[in-house]
Amino acid sequence: MKPEHIGIVGLGSMGFGIARSCLSAGLSTIGFDLDAAKEQELQTFGARAGTLLEAAPDLTVLILVVVNGAQAEAILFGDNGIAEHLNPDSVVIGCPTISPDVAQDFETRLSALGIHYLDAPISGGSLKADAGALTIMASGTPLAFERSETVLTAISEHVFRLGDTAGAGSAMKVVNQLLAGVHIAAAAEAIAFGMTQGIAPDLALDVISRCAGTSWMFENRVPHIVDGDYTPRSAIDIFVKDLGIVTNVAKTAGLETPLALSAFTRFQAAQSAGLGRQDDAAVIKTYAAQAGLKLPGES
Amino acid sequence: MKPEHIGIVGLGSMGFGIARSCLSAGLSTIGFDLDAAKEQELQTFGARAGTLLEAAPDLTVLILVVVNGAQAEAILFGDNGIAEHLNPDSVVIGCPTISPDVAQDFETRLSALGIHYLDAPISGGSLKADAGALTIMASGTPLAFERSETVLTAISEHVFRLGDTAGAGSAMKVVNQLLAGVHIAAAAEAIAFGMTQGIAPDLALDVISRCAGTSWMFENRVPHIVDGDYTPRSAIDIFVKDLGIVTNVAKTAGLETPLALSAFTRFQAAQSAGLGRQDDAAVIKTYAAQAGLKLPGES
Repeated sequence: MKPEHIGIVGLGSMGFGIARSCLSAGLSTIGFDLDAAKEQELQTFGARAGTLLEAAPDLTVLILVVVNGAQAEAILFGDNGIAEHLNPDSVVIGCPTISPDVAQDFETRLSALGIHYLDAPISGGSLKADAGALTIMASGTPLAFERSETVLTAISEHVFRLGDTAGAGSAMKVVNQLLAGVHIAAAAEAIAFGMTQGIAPDLALDVISRCAGTSWMFENRVPHIVDGDYTPRSAIDIFVKDLGIVTNVAKTAGLETPLALSAFTRFQAAQSAGLGRQDDAAVIKTYAAQAGLKLPGES
Repeated sequence: MKPEHIGIVGLGSMGFGIARSCLSAGLSTIGFDLDAAKEQELQTFGARAGTLLEAAPDLTVLILVVVNGAQAEAILFGDNGIAEHLNPDSVVIGCPTISPDVAQDFETRLSALGIHYLDAPISGGSLKADAGALTIMASGTPLAFERSETVLTAISEHVFRLGDTAGAGSAMKVVNQLLAGVHIAAAAEAIAFGMTQGIAPDLALDVISRCAGTSWMFENRVPHIVDGDYTPRSAIDIFVKDLGIVTNVAKTAGLETPLALSAFTRFQAAQSAGLGRQDDAAVIKTYAAQAGLKLPGES
């Protein structure tokens, strides 16, 4: 077996954690980001230096941890696209949330170059990424899985093998994002509703976490509201994008998704109010503004 | 201290469990239901026999586990209402989900008769009721809590003391029901959405339960969909009622609740389609009918 050389494009909170997990597993790793400071920070953890174009011929695995399908498309197939510089028999692991049909398209076009594609959206947040403990919703050919195995072991706690072609992984991730987006908006709506009834957010968090109304997102995001801390762990903009994918895919499939649409509309309103780069829990500010509520941390 | 005599009105799945928990704790207990067979079944577990009117003067605690505020109102203050037959210094424990203002009204009118009122909505489902392990969102005067203490210990695992007047308990329960209703509808929507993408409900249950999109309701209700079993543990009708309370209270408070409204509309559609007495997970049938999906268990 030839030695593994891992490249990671996108060193945001998820990509950086994935890159560190690869380094912790002793893998030769190089990271790329528009922000050169991120690349340099990763090098202090042992990453190699260099440009993506220089590194491409040596890579056995290229992991895309970019924000959306358009960025992945540009990196792979745009001007100076990297796909034609990658080795045949290498594998591209695609992590962003994208439409299933986009994942299928990537697989087809890479396959024409002899490159494998693993459709591999992730769940778990930046803490799990740092710990090499992500959950991965993956689909792809047996060879795509085989070429990815060392990396998947390094970065994840659980890999779901959802099918032998790209698309199935992305479809499951979109299901997850439908729920995640609705649950974040519902958490904000419920906390705002409680406030109108004299219930402080920290009390609602304490009680509801022990009741049937709880959700993973409720328990994860309401503390941001209680602390008045909207530093983006995941941003409003992300859920505008992801719920946009949900509603588009649903429309194509002929399914009404009224809950997802309500949440989408709320995140869009938050984005229009200039909150796009704040933490997604900031969607509560649209409720507070409408009902004249004073949130924790507001003077 | 005089001996406790407990009366329970409403022997549905929650009331029956509460009554059995009282009996298991060695408390003198009598249960009432429109269905005499339920009363007789409870007697086989050691409950006393008799009518509510006969029993009233001896009761130290009357627990209302009826379906809604109108039933509680009728039992307490309607024709042959029981309130005027209860002993002063006894306590009425109100468990149904009602508007905070209705709870306050009950407290005021009972107080005029010297009777205490504990506003005490419950969460946990029938299994927790059977096990004496409910979560209770309670508010009321210190005396109302004191008179209820033996019973609360017998039936619950956790009691939140949310305030010293009625209304705060009901307000918290309404917050919980907003989330519960939205999460059930979202679970149905997500499972139906996954089916349009070729994802079987049991696979979605397995994966999403380990991801950030999960909720208490998702994990509790999706198995009903996977099994094609819509035997009502909690019915569609309940969520039409409870989300009706949510949207009314929110409207009075001047707060828009678009997520709750979307879920409410879906449960109303399910009720209109004749599904009112089925399990609340049957809300997925409105999605399946609209998109032409064949649910598990359908031939």
